[in-house]
Formats: sequence, structure tokens, C-alpha cells
Amino acid sequence: MDPKNRLNTNEEHVNLQISKVRERGSRLRDSVITLAHGAGGKASAALVQHVFFEIFDNEALHAAGDSGIVELSALGEGTQLAMSTDTYVVNPIEFPGGSIGELAVNGTVNDLAVAGACPKVITAAFVLEEGLDVDTLRRICTDMKHAAELAGVKIIAGDTKVVPKGACDKLYITTAGVGVVQQGRESLPSRVEVGDAVLVSGPIADHGMAVMMARGDLAMEAAIDSDTRSVNHLIDAMCKQAEPHFMRDATRGGVATVCNELAQASGLAVVLEDESIPVRPMTRGACDVLGIDPLYVANEGTFIAVVKGSDAQAALEALHAAGAEEAAIIGRIADSPAHSVVLRTGFGGTRMVDMLVGDPLPRIC
Amino acid sequence: MDPKNRLNTNEEHVNLQISKVRERGSRLRDSVITLAHGAGGKASAALVQHVFFEIFDNEALHAAGDSGIVELSALGEGTQLAMSTDTYVVNPIEFPGGSIGELAVNGTVNDLAVAGACPKVITAAFVLEEGLDVDTLRRICTDMKHAAELAGVKIIAGDTKVVPKGACDKLYITTAGVGVVQQGRESLPSRVEVGDAVLVSGPIADHGMAVMMARGDLAMEAAIDSDTRSVNHLIDAMCKQAEPHFMRDATRGGVATVCNELAQASGLAVVLEDESIPVRPMTRGACDVLGIDPLYVANEGTFIAVVKGSDAQAALEALHAAGAEEAAIIGRIADSPAHSVVLRTGFGGTRMVDMLVGDPLPRIC
Repeated sequence: MDPKNRLNTNEEHVNLQISKVRERGSRLRDSVITLAHGAGGKASAALVQHVFFEIFDNEALHAAGDSGIVELSALGEGTQLAMSTDTYVVNPIEFPGGSIGELAVNGTVNDLAVAGACPKVITAAFVLEEGLDVDTLRRICTDMKHAAELAGVKIIAGDTKVVPKGACDKLYITTAGVGVVQQGRESLPSRVEVGDAVLVSGPIADHGMAVMMARGDLAMEAAIDSDTRSVNHLIDAMCKQAEPHFMRDATRGGVATVCNELAQASGLAVVLEDESIPVRPMTRGACDVLGIDPLYVANEGTFIAVVKGSDAQAALEALHAAGAEEAAIIGRIADSPAHSVVLRTGFGGTRMVDMLVGDPLPRIC
Repeated sequence: MDPKNRLNTNEEHVNLQISKVRERGSRLRDSVITLAHGAGGKASAALVQHVFFEIFDNEALHAAGDSGIVELSALGEGTQLAMSTDTYVVNPIEFPGGSIGELAVNGTVNDLAVAGACPKVITAAFVLEEGLDVDTLRRICTDMKHAAELAGVKIIAGDTKVVPKGACDKLYITTAGVGVVQQGRESLPSRVEVGDAVLVSGPIADHGMAVMMARGDLAMEAAIDSDTRSVNHLIDAMCKQAEPHFMRDATRGGVATVCNELAQASGLAVVLEDESIPVRPMTRGACDVLGIDPLYVANEGTFIAVVKGSDAQAALEALHAAGAEEAAIIGRIADSPAHSVVLRTGFGGTRMVDMLVGDPLPRIC
């Protein structure tokens, strides 16, 4: 192995060798994507070189052309790796607060983080529609680069396919990631116990409503920004104060679906306090007008964590100190009604919160 | 970590924790895909449970519902991991000799194998078009299961998105994979030397021509089967006899593109012998009629390997013995013309083989 192709990140000794992003290109002359950019020849090479390599610029990716190596050092005995994947097909691809590029990086980073892992490297595979502006692609890739920097991950490999006009909606991105599992962060429904507290890391329903507004097919407007962000650093901060029993990012299906999955898998009850659940006024207003329950609306940078009741306040303060100022304790785990989620309202009433049926908000991620 | 969620494959001690495929579902009542199957609620859960879990059936995937673990044991000190990704958008999704499902598994397996790694686990992310037959999806997933079994990899995690009719062409699949790098298989242009031999593992151009025929938009028919297959076991066999200096699967852009990439990266010349390059008669005939050079046509189960000249015969015999009966030595590495690929024809003439320009065969993978 050529030593000059190695890059020591001083973090782990498991090495990730890169394949597949290796084309070397000449100049990129086109301003729109054509089928030739996906054919594996000169145009493909130019696109890879002058968009992906140029923007995602890092030693590991450049070395990929020659089967480069990311050297990770100092993993302990018995270390475990987590792996996750997600495709992003959000419409529109740019919306208040973010873009499909940020979602694609943050989503996979967050899947790894809530699985108790420290995300390290991701891959990115693009499906591009013939006729897509190269400038749009550059903006999306720049968003990915910034999201990766904030999360502390490297984009080490990728793929590009181009499909004819009408066989895709502008572009779809699939990311896959690998992270190092952290001791004491095992997120399992079986670890959840009666008396545990349920935390949420921030206001809910912003992402789904922001995308819905951005589509412009509703007779209303509201200044709602997506919550897209990586949560791995928030989880790092929280875990210094409290060992999580269960973590999950509340994406498709929202907080209601995460809590239902937990209730069903653990056999316990998740009791939520309506008045404790943070929802921004603008978002709540939009949900009310449209008859949508914010508990079911997707988030892209907000997670649910279940910790021991006695650790809840410390976990909450850690989240606040790490920048999640609106994190809140929103409920607790009880033994009945078994396998169910219950919402206690401000008037002392309760209602069952079932799993999402149907599809109120398609293509929000 | 719940010990019952562990599965020991007796192979390596790097553990892969699974996130993201975790939905638990009720019955799947639908025969076509609807937007609800991508919304993260009950319909999504039913699809995941009754198509993906049922077909990809393995302990690791089932355990994923509770953050299951694949336990890999006995990796040596300093072991390296390789990671790769690819999206598949082939049209049509089923063609003589294979389907998009086999391509998606074999393609990522092969990317890892030619990077010198032993593929272990893959993820699969689906974009489904509203209206897709569930039976079609089942067939494609069954093809993936069989391909994974043949290659010896597990499908450990996944994702599903559904887009409205017209926003995708039936289905797209993105796979990502992780493999363990094998000592002595470093595939680097810098290791290639003058006098090395160039081998191909089988007849070329079958995949691209099979897909082109299957589209039915040509005024000709020919019984050509795709070469889609995993090559990791062939590479294992070959590497017992010869240390490869360079390996690459000859997918988009074909053998000509792989050889050009090698010539450019190494600064050397790749001299191919036209009469030694295996092309099946039916495939050659179809290429001739259509005016297509088989050197540029995509393969999906055929790789190029460069080995020391004195090891070439042993490498070839190992490939033959492992089932690649039509593997051949097709050329050698020379010092000039530098950075170039040259084809020597049967009449003693030579011609330059440049990189692919344009897109003769779109959406072949």
C-alpha cells in the first residue's frame, strides 16, 4: 500500500479503503447535466472531478482515484461499527432552512448517532435528471460539504447516475455511513424501564411544515425553517451526563411514530404531556389551519431520548448547554396502557396516540 | 447490549450494528405501491415486514428492529475495511440473465472485491414509483437475496422511499457495502510494471448488449444474457496463485475505459491483443450490426486484473478452475506510448483506444 495515499485522522485504527470515486476528468464545459455525464466516459470524469472532488475536497477523496486509504487509529479491543443508509427524494430540493444536500448528510449522521455510534465516514450516490443545472448541483454539494464539516464526517466515496428527463425529479441522493459504537449508548427498547423520562431535543414539526409551505401549493404562507441539523454533538454532550436507554430521530411519522415503535417493542406505555412538547407558534398555527397533528410531522434534526428518571434533569441541562435551548422533558414511561402511547392534555384529559395511517406529507425527506 | 441480539458469523470481530430497518408491520394488503408505503406509518411497516424482512430473512436483519448486531470475530491487528456505494437505474429492470436486484448486489460486491476486499455486509435503499406492482418488488428482492447468498454477503439494513408516479422509473436501488481488505491484494496503478500481463475474467460486452436488446427499441433481436455475477470468489481463487497489481470491474465505459484509467494513472501503455479478447459470437454480431465497439460496452460480472507476467498463466488457470472458463490473457503493460491504450489487430496493425466520449448506451446499470 502506497504510504503517501494514507491519511491519519488520529482517531481509530480501523481503516476505510475507498473505491468507486476514482474518475479523473478534463474540463467541465456543460452548464446542464446530460446523459453523457452518467455514461462513465470523459463527461462523467469531468463532472466527478469538477463538482464532487472540487467541493467535497479532502485528502481521502482525492486519494480515492488511486484506491486511497483513510487511516483511523486507536480503536479499542472489541470495538463495534454501526452502518446505516437512507435515500433522499424531498420535493422541493431547496426549502427554508436547508436543502436535500443537508438532509442527506444529516439524516445518515443522525441515524448513526441515535444508534449510539460516533459517525465517521459517509458515501453519497446521486441520481441526476437530464437537464439539471450544474449550478444547482454545485449548491447542493456545497450544502453537503458544510453539513459534513459541522457533523465532523468525511464524504469518502460516491456514485453518479444520470436518467432521462422525467425519470427522476431533479436529483435524488442516497447516503450510507459507518460509525464507531460508543460504550454505554446502547439504544434498545428492552433497556427502557417504568419511571424513565422521555426527552425531545427541540421544537417539533418544523421540517415537515417548512417543506409543505415551500411547495407553494397551499393557499397560505408561513416563515417556518426546517430543523435539519446533525445531532451527534448534542448526543455526545447528553451522554456525558446520562446514559440513554433509547434514542431515535423523529423523522417520517414524527414523534408519535417513534413513541409507538418504542411502546410496541418494549410492551410499556409512553405517557406524553401535551403542554411540555415544544412546538413553535408559527408551526402550531400552520398545523392548526391545515388540521395536522404536529406529533406526526417529520423532523430532520430532532431526536427522542429516554433516560433514567433521576438523570433527566442533568441530561436536559446538558442539551441546553450544548445549544439545544428548547430541549424539553415531554413525558415518562409507565406500565399501562401496555404497548400504547397516551397524550395527557392541559385539561387533565388523555387521548391515545396511534401510529400514522396513510400519508399526509409525502416526499418530506 | 442484549446478548440475544448478537449473531456470531465466526469470521471477524469487527461488529456492525444495524440501524434504520426497524419497522414492525401488520399485514400487507396492497398489490401496488402507494405513497403511504413511504410515509413511515403502518403501511410502511407492513411493506418492510412482509417484503424486505420476509425475503432478505436473516437473523441480523430481524434483530435490526431492536438495533441488532452482527458479530464478526477474529480480525487481525491493523485490519482495514473497504467501503463502496452504487445506485442502479437500469432500464428495463428485468432483462435476459438478470435484474436490477442482482446488479445492485453484485455491483457493490464487485466494487469491494476489485478493491482487494472480502465483501461482508451491504445495505439496500429503494426508491419506488407509486403504482409499482408489489409482485415485481418481491421478484427483484428475491433476486437480491439469491445474489447475496451466492456472494456470501448479508443485507443488514435498508431504506424505502416512495415517489409519485412519473418521478422515478419503476424502482431505483442504491447499495453500499463494507468489506475486509485482504493482505496482498492492494490494487493500485502505481504497482503496475512494464511486462505485467492483463487478464479479463470472461467474455465482454454481454451486459450492455443484453439490456439494449431487452429494451426492444431496435429492429433486431439476439439471445444475449447479461454477465451479471459476483466475482469475489473468482478473485479469491486467482489471488491464491498470483498477487494482483491492479483489478477493476469493467462496468460503465467497458474494458476500454478501465484500461485508459490505468494507463493515465500509471503513465504506462496498455497493449491489448484484439484476437485474444473474448467476445461471444452473438454479442459480436449485434455490436457489428449496431456499429458499437465491444470494448466500450458495460459488463456487470467481468473484471480486468493485471499481474506479473510470470504469474499470468497460473492466474489464468486458477480462474478457469474456479468456473471462469473463458477468462483470457488479453494484453500486457509496456512503457510506450505512455498514458495510452493500444489495440493490436490480427493483421499486425494497431489503433489507439481512447476514453469513451458521449453516451452510446444509457441506463445500462
